[in-house]
Amino acid sequence: MKPVTIGILGLGTVGGGTATVLQRNAAEIARRAGRSIELVAASVRDINKKHSAELNKVKLTLDSNEIVDDPNIDIILELIGGTDLAKELVLRAIKNGKYIVTANKALIALHGNEIFEAAQRTGVTVAFEAAVAGGIPIIKAIREGLAGNQIEWLAGIINGTGNFILTEMRDKGRDFMDVLKEAQELGYAEADPTFDVEGIDAAHKLTILASIAFGVPLQFEKVYTEGISEITRADVEHAGELGYRIKHLGIARRVASGLEMRVHPTLIPHRRLIANVDGVMNAVLVHADAVGPTLYYGAGAGAEPAASAVVADLVDVVRALTTDPGNRVPHLAFQPDAIQNIEVLTMDQVETAFYLRMQVQDQAGVLADITRIFADQDISIEAIVQKEEKDEQDCVPLVILTHNVLESNMMVAIQKIESLVTVTGKIVRIRLETLG
Amino acid sequence: MKPVTIGILGLGTVGGGTATVLQRNAAEIARRAGRSIELVAASVRDINKKHSAELNKVKLTLDSNEIVDDPNIDIILELIGGTDLAKELVLRAIKNGKYIVTANKALIALHGNEIFEAAQRTGVTVAFEAAVAGGIPIIKAIREGLAGNQIEWLAGIINGTGNFILTEMRDKGRDFMDVLKEAQELGYAEADPTFDVEGIDAAHKLTILASIAFGVPLQFEKVYTEGISEITRADVEHAGELGYRIKHLGIARRVASGLEMRVHPTLIPHRRLIANVDGVMNAVLVHADAVGPTLYYGAGAGAEPAASAVVADLVDVVRALTTDPGNRVPHLAFQPDAIQNIEVLTMDQVETAFYLRMQVQDQAGVLADITRIFADQDISIEAIVQKEEKDEQDCVPLVILTHNVLESNMMVAIQKIESLVTVTGKIVRIRLETLG
Repeated sequence: MKPVTIGILGLGTVGGGTATVLQRNAAEIARRAGRSIELVAASVRDINKKHSAELNKVKLTLDSNEIVDDPNIDIILELIGGTDLAKELVLRAIKNGKYIVTANKALIALHGNEIFEAAQRTGVTVAFEAAVAGGIPIIKAIREGLAGNQIEWLAGIINGTGNFILTEMRDKGRDFMDVLKEAQELGYAEADPTFDVEGIDAAHKLTILASIAFGVPLQFEKVYTEGISEITRADVEHAGELGYRIKHLGIARRVASGLEMRVHPTLIPHRRLIANVDGVMNAVLVHADAVGPTLYYGAGAGAEPAASAVVADLVDVVRALTTDPGNRVPHLAFQPDAIQNIEVLTMDQVETAFYLRMQVQDQAGVLADITRIFADQDISIEAIVQKEEKDEQDCVPLVILTHNVLESNMMVAIQKIESLVTVTGKIVRIRLETLG
Repeated sequence: MKPVTIGILGLGTVGGGTATVLQRNAAEIARRAGRSIELVAASVRDINKKHSAELNKVKLTLDSNEIVDDPNIDIILELIGGTDLAKELVLRAIKNGKYIVTANKALIALHGNEIFEAAQRTGVTVAFEAAVAGGIPIIKAIREGLAGNQIEWLAGIINGTGNFILTEMRDKGRDFMDVLKEAQELGYAEADPTFDVEGIDAAHKLTILASIAFGVPLQFEKVYTEGISEITRADVEHAGELGYRIKHLGIARRVASGLEMRVHPTLIPHRRLIANVDGVMNAVLVHADAVGPTLYYGAGAGAEPAASAVVADLVDVVRALTTDPGNRVPHLAFQPDAIQNIEVLTMDQVETAFYLRMQVQDQAGVLADITRIFADQDISIEAIVQKEEKDEQDCVPLVILTHNVLESNMMVAIQKIESLVTVTGKIVRIRLETLG
């Protein structure tokens, strides 16, 4: 069969990695795909920068439009990142009848509905495996591998930087800011770490996972997002003593009243496999009605892991070039006319268990007041541990684990407890999921 | 689009589970596939047995040939198991132009080359996701999700019964025979447990994984297979004290001199994620050049997990019905003309580390004799631990961990050490892999 021609927009980390993998594994890829894939053009920021030897035969240009408009190119790999220019280029390429592979989670989370509709109209596809959890084939697993299931919930460690920070805090008893600084030096975290540590990056990915799991439109603006910057060493330690680890999870769950989409620090039992996913690694745990729990683990970022996902998409797209569009895997796993609007719940409406930590006066009656407030809000307690270390005000830390409770009830209870004279300062609250 | 019609051969555990899932999730599956899938006929062993309500509209027959020959059926689900009749039926169905989905690992491992060739000639496909690791979409992950990679090695816990036994031995300090009996009572293990505990079932699955990972023909007869029936509580405990767990792994590895395919008990570091896969659960760890390590975890057996894989295959097959055969995912991941014969190494040629346990006299000079033999065979030692508990002959257990060594060298060393007068009985040797 004749070779397929591709053009890469952006030769940065992922673009460069993809060029390398395509070249190094060309024979292996052709043995699988049954035809060769030829990289013919790439757009770059600096045309004079020295590029690696495998790009000798590739036409380099400063203008991505040239590639998007080139009638000799079949498939465009959008690897420039960002949302404005990327969206413009992708829509233009679709208009030109080109197939797209992208690693751009923000682009898909924010503009995917519009992009997929355009692709649908033109009869092309937009593949985006690399947008979630790097090299882990999680989009494929959910869209195709679990096609026989009703998915109940999924929970993922989908930001490597955040997981690296939490792992270091636990393993070495370090503080958040200290580890963040190291992560920046190691290149795991950006100079502005907001996207990673405040959960925005994870929320982009969760948006995509929720859509393909439940057949709902992409709706990033409805994801509840809470970062890890306020997690302290003390909470990591207390959690450990109680048999839990704190992980920054993206969670999507279908319940009777609607759909939960949330990113927040979460205590999970340390024996769960996902609790043992450490460092910069990612993992997604999916609970589905027929198969039960399945978990997918691997590198969530990096040049070659992302390239692995891009090339897998590329092979899929090549194979489906001649398939009638109605028989292709739908972009969001469900046929476009079968996408449903399910109400997304606000956090007030979500039920989880909680870890609470507060400073209380070491005197009789304090516990009675607190447990009375819980009882009034229908909150049942799993464990209470009072620590010995007194602070300057002669108060001691009290750690409480609750059973599942409606978040709105918990917020009322927290407010009431904070107003007790025997309790000083704010209460730390971290959600807890058993993931069972 | 018009509904696709299917017939099931065999309404046992997997067949019954598949019928249930197809019925319960019919709407969800149609929302994904874009058309409905109709179960029209099933073959059963006992026509008078009461079947569940969802089979009311399904034609039941005692004769699988009727289904295989029915011109109104598009796709055959072969779920009777066994190899002789199953092979006959599948080849006949292929001849009739039918597409096949099977959960039959023995059939694929032993007769897959012939079956795929027949399918290739007729232009149909044979899907077999359920044949390996139950509901985990591992075939899809390797064949498609990692298509851009050169796979270096894979290691899998691919027999749930064996993993249940080893987990119970470790968690509860129980003996092999004791746990096996319970597994049989729980229905995890067959009355004749040979297939599970001696590694034959795992070897069938490893045969398939090795083929799709490395593009080699299916060659079950070349898999080295060693079971877990001789693993003792003492070895499980010693391994634990040294920071290892014993797992029954199927391992396939590409090395410069050829291909390793082996199933045997293996010590692995307890911090590895796969070391924490417990009970009847399965997991496959794949190491590939671009993506690095990825791991896939889930239920390896059971009616609905297997049904999950069967239905996913079914949706894939339905989508590819109108695809030209050259653009379909090849049966063994690589195009038929790109399948290569790579020499499969014998165990003598394989390099692994070792755990050794022996009974030695508690006297000076014993260690010197043993370490001298190791030095002569170029074996370097990672750790030596001498235990205190003396046996009737006044001997104590000596546990040794080695670095990587050629197995033939280790066998010579073991023979020489066993012939020392200060060493009594046989040496227990279990291979050790760091999986790093």
